[in-house]
Amino acid sequence: MPSASASRKSQEKPREIMDAAEDYAKERYGISSMIQSQEKPDRVLVRVRDLTIQKADEVVWVRARVHTSRAKGKQCFLVLRQQQFNVQALVAVGDHASKQMVKFAANINKESIVDVEGVVRKVNQKIGSCTQQDVELHVQKIYVISLAEPRLPLQLDDAVRPEAEGEEEGRATVNQDTRLDNRVIDLRTSTSQAVFRLQSGICHLFRETLINKGFVEIQTPKIISAASEGGANVFTVSYFKNNAYLAQSPQLYKQMCICADFEKVFSIGPVFRAEDSNTHRHLTEFVGLDIEMAFNYHYHEVMEEIADTMVQIFKGLQERFQTEIQTVNKQFPCEPFKFLEPTLRLEYCEALAMLREAGVEMGDEDDLSTPNEKLLGHLVKEKYDTDFYILDKYPLAVRPFYTMPDPRNPKQSNSYDMFMRGEEILSGAQRIHDPQLLTERALHHGIDLEKIKAYIDSFRFGAPPHAGGGIGLERVTMLFLGLHNVRQTSMFPRDPKRLTP
Amino acid sequence: MPSASASRKSQEKPREIMDAAEDYAKERYGISSMIQSQEKPDRVLVRVRDLTIQKADEVVWVRARVHTSRAKGKQCFLVLRQQQFNVQALVAVGDHASKQMVKFAANINKESIVDVEGVVRKVNQKIGSCTQQDVELHVQKIYVISLAEPRLPLQLDDAVRPEAEGEEEGRATVNQDTRLDNRVIDLRTSTSQAVFRLQSGICHLFRETLINKGFVEIQTPKIISAASEGGANVFTVSYFKNNAYLAQSPQLYKQMCICADFEKVFSIGPVFRAEDSNTHRHLTEFVGLDIEMAFNYHYHEVMEEIADTMVQIFKGLQERFQTEIQTVNKQFPCEPFKFLEPTLRLEYCEALAMLREAGVEMGDEDDLSTPNEKLLGHLVKEKYDTDFYILDKYPLAVRPFYTMPDPRNPKQSNSYDMFMRGEEILSGAQRIHDPQLLTERALHHGIDLEKIKAYIDSFRFGAPPHAGGGIGLERVTMLFLGLHNVRQTSMFPRDPKRLTP
Repeated sequence: MPSASASRKSQEKPREIMDAAEDYAKERYGISSMIQSQEKPDRVLVRVRDLTIQKADEVVWVRARVHTSRAKGKQCFLVLRQQQFNVQALVAVGDHASKQMVKFAANINKESIVDVEGVVRKVNQKIGSCTQQDVELHVQKIYVISLAEPRLPLQLDDAVRPEAEGEEEGRATVNQDTRLDNRVIDLRTSTSQAVFRLQSGICHLFRETLINKGFVEIQTPKIISAASEGGANVFTVSYFKNNAYLAQSPQLYKQMCICADFEKVFSIGPVFRAEDSNTHRHLTEFVGLDIEMAFNYHYHEVMEEIADTMVQIFKGLQERFQTEIQTVNKQFPCEPFKFLEPTLRLEYCEALAMLREAGVEMGDEDDLSTPNEKLLGHLVKEKYDTDFYILDKYPLAVRPFYTMPDPRNPKQSNSYDMFMRGEEILSGAQRIHDPQLLTERALHHGIDLEKIKAYIDSFRFGAPPHAGGGIGLERVTMLFLGLHNVRQTSMFPRDPKRLTP
Repeated sequence: MPSASASRKSQEKPREIMDAAEDYAKERYGISSMIQSQEKPDRVLVRVRDLTIQKADEVVWVRARVHTSRAKGKQCFLVLRQQQFNVQALVAVGDHASKQMVKFAANINKESIVDVEGVVRKVNQKIGSCTQQDVELHVQKIYVISLAEPRLPLQLDDAVRPEAEGEEEGRATVNQDTRLDNRVIDLRTSTSQAVFRLQSGICHLFRETLINKGFVEIQTPKIISAASEGGANVFTVSYFKNNAYLAQSPQLYKQMCICADFEKVFSIGPVFRAEDSNTHRHLTEFVGLDIEMAFNYHYHEVMEEIADTMVQIFKGLQERFQTEIQTVNKQFPCEPFKFLEPTLRLEYCEALAMLREAGVEMGDEDDLSTPNEKLLGHLVKEKYDTDFYILDKYPLAVRPFYTMPDPRNPKQSNSYDMFMRGEEILSGAQRIHDPQLLTERALHHGIDLEKIKAYIDSFRFGAPPHAGGGIGLERVTMLFLGLHNVRQTSMFPRDPKRLTP
């Protein structure tokens, strides 16, 4: 930032004594010294999104990134970008800008951050390439606040190009590893900005809905002394002189909160799975949106609360994040997400019948494979026109030991999954709240009772019947937006092969 | 739950043929079969808090825990508890209850969950020992939904007794390890219920305030490839065939989000510190409320936003959680939390002068010890009448390498801590956003540049000036309520000696 005295000096200099050799605009541009909070200037920075014809002919200060620059004779056109908004800026030789200043502006590395003073001017022809189509900024001063290195590891324009367009026109797109290796830049694209703003919205809507329903937010520990759901797929932590584990879910803790009379609880937090799965939908660390709730007489009381929470999220996203949805759709075209109210509930046996009718061979107690899940999603969409539904009453054999058996059919259980666009996003059930039955079921599953003693003991001092479920945040974001890889909806994804950045 | 036919049968039985040998009330009480969602009875369960004189003479169903029971001749008085509310219930031999039924009720183990049908009756004399003081419930039916074991590891009444009262009257209180070992029961006390409801409120107010200020919520990874803040105090995780670490803070990631143009971000999540500290305020895993924000010209823009966020939290708690505050105060008496608007800001050198005046010997670049922090808190409270203040401009020497030096005084830095009741709850600063200076400072601190390459590289492609801070949730809860141990405000605390439950 130029000092106050420097800019005064430039104003005092009479224009007539300037000549070609001297740069009459030299105080009007340059590389600022690093902002170290030296001063608190009385300057208002206007947001790029607010640069509209209402501001025509006003002199404004803007801080933005140099998205592109293009010199053309005595002029330089810049596109200045601020988050998902951008505006054209013109530096032209004249009263305010010298040749040298135009050259300086043209040579600013892309992605550098600049402070620009300019006059907002109405344009006669809409600027199709910018979000601010009706005005441009006639630059009077331009200072670099933070200079980017000259070579970018990826180009933002390539990073938002739809793949189909890239292929057709032979233009570059950016592959996933390059994006993830350079996440700081990839996250600046309009698509990434929209994805993660919407994801923030999912968390907000989830909590808003549940707090309105009387739920209490809980914080559960991630370092645990014994593997919570059996020993497989658990990460080991060195804990002082012992070993500990990373929680595969907040299951035990949210149930303890129910036994402790909190009645309705939720949590949002990381969940760790040491699965060596390299698929489009598995991460070793993801964000779990967890719910647990005591009910009166039937676990459907809980299942319906969860389904309604999902519906409130979908509605909220469609109401509040339409711009973000459309931004993502530009790069990744997709049908709008459809859902019914109340949510469609199918029983597992009905789903089996639909799949069998479509030619799938499956036993009554087989779990759904990923392709069958997808196929079922298509069949359900065709028949019921919904992208969201509940599959209820899973076979007992395919669920965890703590799942309540269906008293009317010993092969079934009081459990459910929820699906978005044919992929599972939530798994839930009535839990066994009776220590005797829980012990029996654990033994039946061959689980070492010693390891789950604390879990079973939680139910010895009076436990209300309860049910719940866990939702994968990244999956919800991915499937709502019709994306195809969970790495697109995790800011810094972790999988067996990726731990950085 | 008795089946519908069973209760019909009981109604059909003419009263006159009953005799002393037969139990004329036998269908009206008992141990229900386990609730496995067999049926969806059309029964409304009334909340204990709603049992008021407005409901006098109504017949209601209530589900609650047996808090205490006391048999007295042909009567049994129960206190039924539901979260922080309780009501007296009377089972008396008469039309609805037999001797056997009274005996059954008297023998139900404490903490069992029961379904009770009863008539709400106005009482002539207020019941001082219950929250519902104006009515009692005349029990007509009582069924045990979940039976507690007969011996409780701790008594709830002991667990809420103020220590002073226990000492004076020679009555039992419960020590911390017993509480934590039996957390499911300890969390049922009115004090615990209030503490953790208020804690949920802190998270809610934090997010509500920041979302209103335009912040975006982010999710940052907890498994990282290199120790983020130097190698000390970090937990190691086995990550497939390699080692990884647990994040000591979301520092790098929230700064990357700033470099990625999110401008204002926050996160709530676990933070891990492998410190072998066994103090009242250290945990190995705690919940971090983190903020990071780009600013225009001065880091005070951010510091003031954070301070205002804290003030909004304090105000929100005092407005919305007065009942909870008073409940906790009953067991742990404490002065109401005081704060100023705008928040008091002191510079480090002013604090030093105050401490020196009080007789403390400290060098200009020494960090504050815990006792000196506390003393300073007292001095500030005395002088300014506030329990919350900012200490600004810490010596550069005592802050992390990424802290922005003060350009006007090389021994100072653009950093601040915030204090509640004399204890630090937030540490924050302007961060160095220039890769060159960051490299210099890292070298000065003897940090291996290779290990923080990704961190430094984040700033190479244009980075706005920014600042932020991290808040410890459990400390905020503890200090707002005037409690004395952070284990009281962590549901399932982790320290070097405790990993369970």
